[in-house]
Amino acid sequence: MAAARAGIGIDVGGTKIAAGVIGPDGTVGARSRRDTPAADADAIARTIAEVVEELDAPGAPVGVGAAGHVDLEGVVRTSPNVPGWVREPLQARLEQTLEGRPVVVANDADAAAWGEYRCGGAADVDGLVLLTVGTGVGGGVVIGDRLLRGADGGAGEVGHLIVDEGGPRCNCGNLGCLEAHASGTAIGRKARAAVAEGHVRSTSPLSGRAPGGAEVSRAALDGDPDAREIIAEAGRWLGVGLGALGNVLDPPVFVIGGGVMAAGELLLAPAREAMVERLLGRETRAVPPVRASALGSDAGMIGAGLLAGESTAPRVSADGAGGA
Amino acid sequence: MAAARAGIGIDVGGTKIAAGVIGPDGTVGARSRRDTPAADADAIARTIAEVVEELDAPGAPVGVGAAGHVDLEGVVRTSPNVPGWVREPLQARLEQTLEGRPVVVANDADAAAWGEYRCGGAADVDGLVLLTVGTGVGGGVVIGDRLLRGADGGAGEVGHLIVDEGGPRCNCGNLGCLEAHASGTAIGRKARAAVAEGHVRSTSPLSGRAPGGAEVSRAALDGDPDAREIIAEAGRWLGVGLGALGNVLDPPVFVIGGGVMAAGELLLAPAREAMVERLLGRETRAVPPVRASALGSDAGMIGAGLLAGESTAPRVSADGAGGA
Repeated sequence: MAAARAGIGIDVGGTKIAAGVIGPDGTVGARSRRDTPAADADAIARTIAEVVEELDAPGAPVGVGAAGHVDLEGVVRTSPNVPGWVREPLQARLEQTLEGRPVVVANDADAAAWGEYRCGGAADVDGLVLLTVGTGVGGGVVIGDRLLRGADGGAGEVGHLIVDEGGPRCNCGNLGCLEAHASGTAIGRKARAAVAEGHVRSTSPLSGRAPGGAEVSRAALDGDPDAREIIAEAGRWLGVGLGALGNVLDPPVFVIGGGVMAAGELLLAPAREAMVERLLGRETRAVPPVRASALGSDAGMIGAGLLAGESTAPRVSADGAGGA
Repeated sequence: MAAARAGIGIDVGGTKIAAGVIGPDGTVGARSRRDTPAADADAIARTIAEVVEELDAPGAPVGVGAAGHVDLEGVVRTSPNVPGWVREPLQARLEQTLEGRPVVVANDADAAAWGEYRCGGAADVDGLVLLTVGTGVGGGVVIGDRLLRGADGGAGEVGHLIVDEGGPRCNCGNLGCLEAHASGTAIGRKARAAVAEGHVRSTSPLSGRAPGGAEVSRAALDGDPDAREIIAEAGRWLGVGLGALGNVLDPPVFVIGGGVMAAGELLLAPAREAMVERLLGRETRAVPPVRASALGSDAGMIGAGLLAGESTAPRVSADGAGGA
């Protein structure tokens, strides 16, 4: 057992840096926010250092959730949304810049999975699979009380399950990834195709427009049947992915976050139905619950802060009496 | 650390029961073999007891790898190939029958994964994903030195990744599972379709026949180009599944077993190629090796014996000096 302490959690995305002081129970104290100078790795590191200074938590360890492939040494190999990061040794650089503070760098969705696991949508069980359905589909896996990072830090990329080989082009260049069918980007693409092909009623708020994913969600929540069908289709594809993941991992719970979760049950209900149909032996097995994220867009920041506070905590014996 | 001892490993499939005395290093001593009385759960349990008696290893713990969904209490919920097993409390029943011997029951492919991990194709790393490509596609997952059984014992069913939603019908009833494209059954189906549609040269040994998967493998190994293309297609689909699994789990190694592996590199080379194309960030990440099984058809029996010997071993301290 490790006695956790407060950590600074920093979520670095393609457009913004969100930071906060995170208590051992996941509560968020002071916060800070900046734009991401995404083209310039030096500027990102300086901005992170400024944010840490501003948060005024002397000596607190720092956890960073970085949007990209983060290896086990905290090097960001590549990042689709932060072009300045190419084999960027972020952890080593921040350890040097933030003299004396321990630093942990992980993938942003992995950090979010840890947050949901420790004090969010999966706080009552011993693991989860998180899917964040936004512009893309990301995620993270916790199994047996451990964050799964994989042999080279590449684990948790659940958006790149191939569910429809040969299907629509994904941002990653492949065809038929889950992300190409269930992301906000995919929802927007399908809505624009439906409008162009005349499959949208003239009374729909989507009619005559070139809607994005968020617009489709809003129209669906307002009751538009065409928008609802487009969200439901994305939900069914999400369920195909959940079924595949259920067959391979059989997690205690799925947690779904990301911007598209604004659509709530309009997305989740068809996802659950499609998942159950695809679970092997579904008549006699437990079906994993599919829950909405409890931490929302704070999940990555909170998880990063928890990872930092926990991984740098002094080890104590199981009875809590002492330690080295 | 646990000091392992010898265990009896028993692999119960739809047609045969294979058993042996398994040393802590995976070596196989005495062996026994019976037909599976698959329609009758009582008869299966009696046959297992006879085999244990015959192997003459007094007091040795017993591990069973069972072809079916095995829950965490060792109940076989259902089994596609052993109709006598419906909510069969196999572990409890054997504990009673085999008075005093500890008993562990796990899924057969999970047991095989443990065997390959401990003393087979993944003995040098800290985990693996095993795929057994035979009549169906089964498998197992070891992560961080632990066999992944899942919340309800349902983990490791890698054959039921949906890779081609809406595609060919799988034995499980769904459409487009990996098993429906890459199993021996799928290879036979595709070969028969190729023959029927006149896509097979008249010089091919498949011509004018209704070949099964094993026949296609033999013809491919004998150099028949039509058979080779059918095996390569199955290999490419296998690679789609490996790519998906690589993106979610990033394992240190994939190990491929099962009868279709008779085709060896004719299957594995196209699988590797298709996998790499589908790995996210493949330009900058480590690519998991894809290896042939080292234990072959003994993997389940050996793994079951190891699971029994290890799980019932007395706990010792890390320095090996003693323990209670």
